[in-house]
Formats: sequence, structure tokens, C-alpha cells
Amino acid sequence: MTNFEVRAYDAAGRLGELDVPRAGVTVETPTILPVVNPHVQTVDPSALESEFGAEILITNSYILHGSEDLREPALERGLHDLLDFDGAIMTDSGSFQLAEYGEISVTTEEILQFQHDIGSDIGTPVDIPTPPDVDRSQAEDELATTQERLEIAAGVDTGEMLVTAPVQGSTYPDLREQAGAHAKATGLDVFPLGAVVPLMNEYRYADLANVVSACKRGLGEAGPVHLFGAGHPMMFAMAAALGCDLFDSAAYALYARDDRYLTVRGTELLDDLDYFPCECPVCTDHTPSELRTMGEDAREDLLARHNLYVTYGEIRRVRQAIRGGNLLELVEVRARGHPAMTDGYRALLDHAEQLERTDRVSKDAFFHTSAESARRPEILRHQSRLDRFEITGDTVLLTEGGSNDRYDETWGVRPPFGPYPRELGDTYPLTAEVPDRLHRDAYEAAADGVARLVDCHPDVAFTLVHDDWPASALDRVPETVDLRDLHARE
Amino acid sequence: MTNFEVRAYDAAGRLGELDVPRAGVTVETPTILPVVNPHVQTVDPSALESEFGAEILITNSYILHGSEDLREPALERGLHDLLDFDGAIMTDSGSFQLAEYGEISVTTEEILQFQHDIGSDIGTPVDIPTPPDVDRSQAEDELATTQERLEIAAGVDTGEMLVTAPVQGSTYPDLREQAGAHAKATGLDVFPLGAVVPLMNEYRYADLANVVSACKRGLGEAGPVHLFGAGHPMMFAMAAALGCDLFDSAAYALYARDDRYLTVRGTELLDDLDYFPCECPVCTDHTPSELRTMGEDAREDLLARHNLYVTYGEIRRVRQAIRGGNLLELVEVRARGHPAMTDGYRALLDHAEQLERTDRVSKDAFFHTSAESARRPEILRHQSRLDRFEITGDTVLLTEGGSNDRYDETWGVRPPFGPYPRELGDTYPLTAEVPDRLHRDAYEAAADGVARLVDCHPDVAFTLVHDDWPASALDRVPETVDLRDLHARE
Repeated sequence: MTNFEVRAYDAAGRLGELDVPRAGVTVETPTILPVVNPHVQTVDPSALESEFGAEILITNSYILHGSEDLREPALERGLHDLLDFDGAIMTDSGSFQLAEYGEISVTTEEILQFQHDIGSDIGTPVDIPTPPDVDRSQAEDELATTQERLEIAAGVDTGEMLVTAPVQGSTYPDLREQAGAHAKATGLDVFPLGAVVPLMNEYRYADLANVVSACKRGLGEAGPVHLFGAGHPMMFAMAAALGCDLFDSAAYALYARDDRYLTVRGTELLDDLDYFPCECPVCTDHTPSELRTMGEDAREDLLARHNLYVTYGEIRRVRQAIRGGNLLELVEVRARGHPAMTDGYRALLDHAEQLERTDRVSKDAFFHTSAESARRPEILRHQSRLDRFEITGDTVLLTEGGSNDRYDETWGVRPPFGPYPRELGDTYPLTAEVPDRLHRDAYEAAADGVARLVDCHPDVAFTLVHDDWPASALDRVPETVDLRDLHARE
Repeated sequence: MTNFEVRAYDAAGRLGELDVPRAGVTVETPTILPVVNPHVQTVDPSALESEFGAEILITNSYILHGSEDLREPALERGLHDLLDFDGAIMTDSGSFQLAEYGEISVTTEEILQFQHDIGSDIGTPVDIPTPPDVDRSQAEDELATTQERLEIAAGVDTGEMLVTAPVQGSTYPDLREQAGAHAKATGLDVFPLGAVVPLMNEYRYADLANVVSACKRGLGEAGPVHLFGAGHPMMFAMAAALGCDLFDSAAYALYARDDRYLTVRGTELLDDLDYFPCECPVCTDHTPSELRTMGEDAREDLLARHNLYVTYGEIRRVRQAIRGGNLLELVEVRARGHPAMTDGYRALLDHAEQLERTDRVSKDAFFHTSAESARRPEILRHQSRLDRFEITGDTVLLTEGGSNDRYDETWGVRPPFGPYPRELGDTYPLTAEVPDRLHRDAYEAAADGVARLVDCHPDVAFTLVHDDWPASALDRVPETVDLRDLHARE
């Protein structure tokens, strides 16, 4: 029995529904869990629900556990009443505090019991958040401890409360993969990818893509994957395409406190803005100079609200993209927001084969809009499946022009895909919209497709009639292929 | 005396102020002029002003001239009262109707007088909108007629009313350039680039970039440039970077009537949306399914408002980008929204030398985020200025690593820029943020920079210590340069 249902895939991205039985709600994913500090609430949880549509939030049970003021009220009234929030509430365990301060004073059993007792809907064991780049032995030792804790957690009776199984392993892909497989085997419900905050703080999005894809290889299509601490909207699309379903962050509030303004292309300082580059209610009703002259509280409130509008707006954009089958088109756009995102996208495409496994076979559109786009999973799939077609004749024409009876068969050829049986020319992804001006990477990808087809049919004599391909592409076509330029034909 | 002042440049993009004396207002540019149909107003002009901050709109004087209902009220009450709008009002002349229906019944003198009499702030003569791709002789003949009309217009006494000088010439760059120079010489005030709507309707953004840059070569830095009929926010950034200051469109209203929803990445049909991919007040307060179940008028109103929020949001984004010196970074992102925009961006970069002329010499940041980015004006400028540096020694080391005393001089070298004197290493654009994973285009651009430096100093012996450059880049380094790999150094 699973609490998570996937309604649509795009690359490894998933439009899903997480059933949270204790809260009696179904949470639509991908989504963001605003971090609510039990002591200081920049935006009231009830406003998160009514104004921003929050179905779920996250708060810290370890802070409540240690709070003289709030521990008893939390136990007596329960979290939902304490925070005035009807949606699902997930609780963190203190692992973050462990990572920051080196030790904490609760065990997994204690904190899970406490989370249960305060009415949490999704509880978290005390795992060890191993930072990036540590020695392998540290990563292995700490992962072993995390895995013991997960096994303990799996044995605790927590009633209807869902329990997470964090996936650690530092920046070692094999450890992350193994950790993912172990987490899945525990039978726990939600899978946070842990200790990725340092990567995100340092804009190491390529390393992040490698960590996420390693975890996902281990997790397979098990329950919802939570990218712990990911709250910047600039990377939601990329993380979703890699298979993350849940994000959380205090960024909307923390950034607002420092006059920082979130956008899908990065972070701006209020002081640097003459115009609000945004459509949200805050930015359509105010100017930056108005905000600068406001009192601190009013300014912080409006900036937090802007940050939330952008955050939820990007969540909707990601959902719509998965629904519409153009999530990678959105990633393509976001990849140009910052050089670190470009790195992330280039790393993501290293995992095209992995993304291809869950990618929909047919979508409405394929927009080819960059050099990198020639490495998308759809092109990989098209070329890998060229071995499925039989060729019965001895001579085959691959052409960007019309067919020719002098050959036993005529195939089409089209950058960046390469050769295709003509009857497939009107099917996805060959229906792709491509620029008139193609980058040579697109021609080279097509040439690789030709090489793949030739490889599948070593006894066939191929002729390639191309429309002015660059030398770098023609160099990749096997020497046995007879090359002709479309406009130089007799 | 000029009515237009440029406050900041970025590429050919301009943050400016257009003084409209008859309206007594100063319009900030770039901006959009919503088209207001005198008979049917989807969104009231007063709401355009109060809710969206519209400082200027455009309406059609030819329709008013021929209207039994509105001609007299317009003459008696004046346009500002008739439309209930305090900002600047520009009027079109009927040229669009001429293009659509083949003839109209007014002369330039008559319609300019009428525009003056109804209180227009910016009037338009009756030019001939020559469509793209016509015979050259037609383009030349019609341009001659347009130019006669502009000369007539320049001679009409229109008081404080500004008068536009449309630039025609079809898709012939030399005619567009000559038309721009002629328009500038008339001394008229605002320069609409005419008959580009067919290009935009067909998503021919590369052709559009070529037309705009040709017009701009002729116009130089004369008054504000109006891209006539450009109302889709997806192309504002690109058009602004090419030097357009004013846009106008009925798209917000016409699209809303057809349940079409504007985004900066293209157009969506309401029926295709499960989630609103937007932060605007309409999209944060409603869901697509709510809109679908509304009555037609309420739906049209909300869609028009969404379309306007996105439109003005993108205008603010463009202004902020010019102010922040990252307009080309915004263009880079928009170029990935649609393959036709990718074409447009690639064509825009063909004009990098032209864009460089007005580009700021120093900006806060340079984000290198794509293969195309290696062709930006800043890189062109850096390389073209390599001839400004003297080299006194006989041997020069160009290196991605540290300096070496065995050479008379050590220069830095950095993709995509190429070689640079080390003392400039912390100045723009060498402060660029670049991905760790570079496309070979970046290395090749750097190699071209090396070639340029070698060309300037034929008697110097250069050694290039590079960090694993690809063969395609090393092939572009002159043979006289001694090549070494950074990690293979002794």
C-alpha cells in the first residue's frame, strides 16, 4: 500500500498526489513546504493556506521539544491548533541542529514519539547529515548510523503518522545510490535527500544534479522525494526534472529579513532594484522605492509575500510543465538564469539515459532551443531505438530532401534526431520545432544517429543527402556512407 | 531640442524618458502602449492607468474620423475626455487599414489635422506599410511615397503634438537603413518601425532582428523607436536590446477574447492549462478551471487583466535589466522560450558589433550561460581592443595558470574572452561568471582572441598554457603559438 500516486511523468519529473492520512488531506506534488518557525511567524500559517494555497508546511519538532514556552502547548493542543493550519504538517527532527551544532539530546525513538504526540502528520528520524566532500570513510560510517536509525524508525509504532527515510552519502554517487536503495527497502514513506544545503548555498548545481540522480537510481520510483532545504525557485524545475517532488525552505522569510528578493533567475537585493521584475500582487501594487521607505516590519512582510508568490508561481509553472510535457523546456530556460544553473543543466543531461526511463513516449511539443538540447533524453531514445527497424533492401537513402527510386528504401534525416523511417516523420519527437539556424551540436547529434543506424546494419549501403551540414558533423558520419549535399544533387 | 533623453544604455537597449508636451507628461521607456479601440474597451483606459500604471496608450484616429458616433464627440470633448485617460495618447493614422483593405480616404494633411483637432499627443502620417518579401521595386516605390508623406508631415503645423516618422522598406536591410536615415533627417519626433507585424505573426524573429538593426543603423540615436504592433511580452527583451523603446498592441484584449493566455515563453490556450504558470493577481486568485466555468465576459476580463499584468511585468523586467546592465542575460533566457526566439537571438548576435557601439563599457556582472553567449558584444569589444596594448618583450606567456619569469611578459587567458593583461583581470567583463563546464564555443572564442593578439604582434613569440582546451579550439590558435596543457606542465 502506498501513499503516493504519480499522475504524470515528464523526464524523471512527476505530477503526484501524496495522501497524508493523519491530516486527512491529499497533497499535490511537486510542492513546497514553507518552513514555519514555531516562535516567529513571518507569514501566518493560516495566510499560507488562504492566500498562497499551501497544502503542507514543515516545522521543527526539536525546537518544540526543547522549548519551555511551546513544548506543553504543543503536546496539549497539538500542532495544527498551535499553528492554526488545517493542511498537512511535516516535522523535522533536529538533524539540522545536529549538523550545525554537533550534537543533540534526543534519540530517534524519543523524537518520533514526540512528533507523534504533538500531532505531526509526517515525522522524521534523527539521521546524520553528512556534508559534501568529506572523506569516504566518514561518509560510510555516518551512513551506516543513519541506516541504523532508519531501521529503528521503521520499527516504531507511529500510528497514521508517515515517517521519512532521509538519504545521505555525501557527494559519493555510489553511497547515495546505495542509501536510496536502503531507504526504499525500509518501507518508510517519504524520502528526503539530506545534506544538500551546502551544495545549494555554494551554487554547486552540477554536483547537486549528480547527487539527486544517484539517490534516484537507488530509490527507483518509490514514494515522494524531498529535496531537503531547497527553497529557491530558480532550481525547482531542474530538481523536479531529476525526480524531486517536495521542496522546503525558510528562504522566503529569511531572505525577506535581509531585504533579499527572490526571482526565478536568482536573488536580488531590494536596494539594487529600480523596478520590480515581477507580476505578483506585491510588485504590481508597489515600487521598490516605496518599500525602501516603509518601516522594517511592513517591508519584511511584503518581501516575504513576494517571495512566496514567486515560489508558489514557479511550483504551478513546474506542475503545468509536467502536465503539458514541456518540463525540459522550462529547465532549458531556467538553465540560462545563472552560470551555475547552466552547469546544473549540463550535468542533468549526463543523466539523460536515466531520465529517459520514466519520460513519456509522446508529448505535444519538443522545442529545440540550444546546443545542449541536442542531448535531451528524447533524442537519446530515438537513436537507441533505431535497432528496432528492419531494413530489407541493400541500399538506403537518408535524406533531408525527397525520396529517390534508385534506392531500395528512403529514410528521412533531421537534425538533431538523425535518421527516421519516413512514416514516423509526423510523430513525436520528430514533430519538434527547431530553429532555422541550428547549432553544429544539432548536426553532430544527427550524424551520431546516422552512425548508430549504420552500426545496426553493417551490410547496407547508405547514402546521406544532407542540407549543408558542417564539417564537424560530416566527420562523425562513418566513412562507408556516401555523402551528398542536398543542393549539389544532380 | 529633443523630446527624448536616454538615461542608461545596455547593448542597444535604452532606458529613456519621452517628454510629451501636449499631454504634459513624461513617459518612461521602454514601455508598451495598449491599443484602445474607441468603440470597445476590454479594460477601461482609466483602469489601465490606475491598475497597470499605463502612462501612454494608442488609439486609431482613422476609426474616429470615420465614425458617425464618435467623430463629433472626439472633436468636441477631445480624446482625453472621451477615453477618460490622463496620460499621453498616441494616434495611428489608418495606415494599418490601408495595408489591410488597400485604400483609405484621407490624406496625411487631413489626418494629421484631425489628430491635432481631437487632442492627440502624438500623431501619425499616412505611410505605406510595405509587407515583407515584396519585389524590391515595390519596396522602393512605396518607400518613396512614404518619404514624401513624411516630408509633408514635417511641414504641417501641429502645435505641441509630436509627429511620428514611420520607417518602411520591407525586408531589404539597405532600404530600411536608408529609410531610417531619411526619417531621422525629417526632424520628426518618434520613429515607428512599420509593417513588422507579418514577421511577428509568423514568428520570424531572425528576420525581425535584421530589420530592426537595419532601421537602427539609419536612425542612429535619434528619438524613440516604436516597434509597431509588437505586443507579445516574449519578444520585448530582444527588441529592446536591439534598440526599440516603444511597443504597442491589442494582443492583451484580442487574445483574451479567444481564451489565449500570454506568457514570456509564448501563448497558451486556457483550455490547455491545469495550473496558471504565473504570479499575477488574477493567477494567484483563480484556477484555470474556475475561469473556464465563468461567463464569457468575466473570463475575458480576467484574461485581459492577466495579459496586461504579464505585459507590464515584462516591461519592468526589461527596464530593471537595462538599469542593472543585464539585458542580454534576459535576452539569453527569453531566447530559450521558443525555437523562433532562439533564431532571433542568433540573428541579434550577428549584429554584436552594432550593439557594442552603445553598450556600457562596465557593468556589474556578465553571466556566460550558453554557447551563443560567446558571441556577445562584450567579447567582441574585448578582442577588438587587444590592439590597444603594447607588448615590449619578445616572449609572452598566455596562461590560465600562474605567471612564469622565463617569459618577458605574462598575460592571463580566459574563455570565452581570450587573452588579457593581468592587471585587467578584475575588471568587467573579465569578472564574468562562467560555468565550470564550458561549451567548446567558449574555448573557440578564446582561441580567436589569441589569434587576434598574435595578429597585432607578429614579432612576439607566444606560448599558450591552456586548461584542457578542446581540439576544435586549439585548431584556431595560430601555428606560431607554442601550445602547452596546464596540467602537463613541467
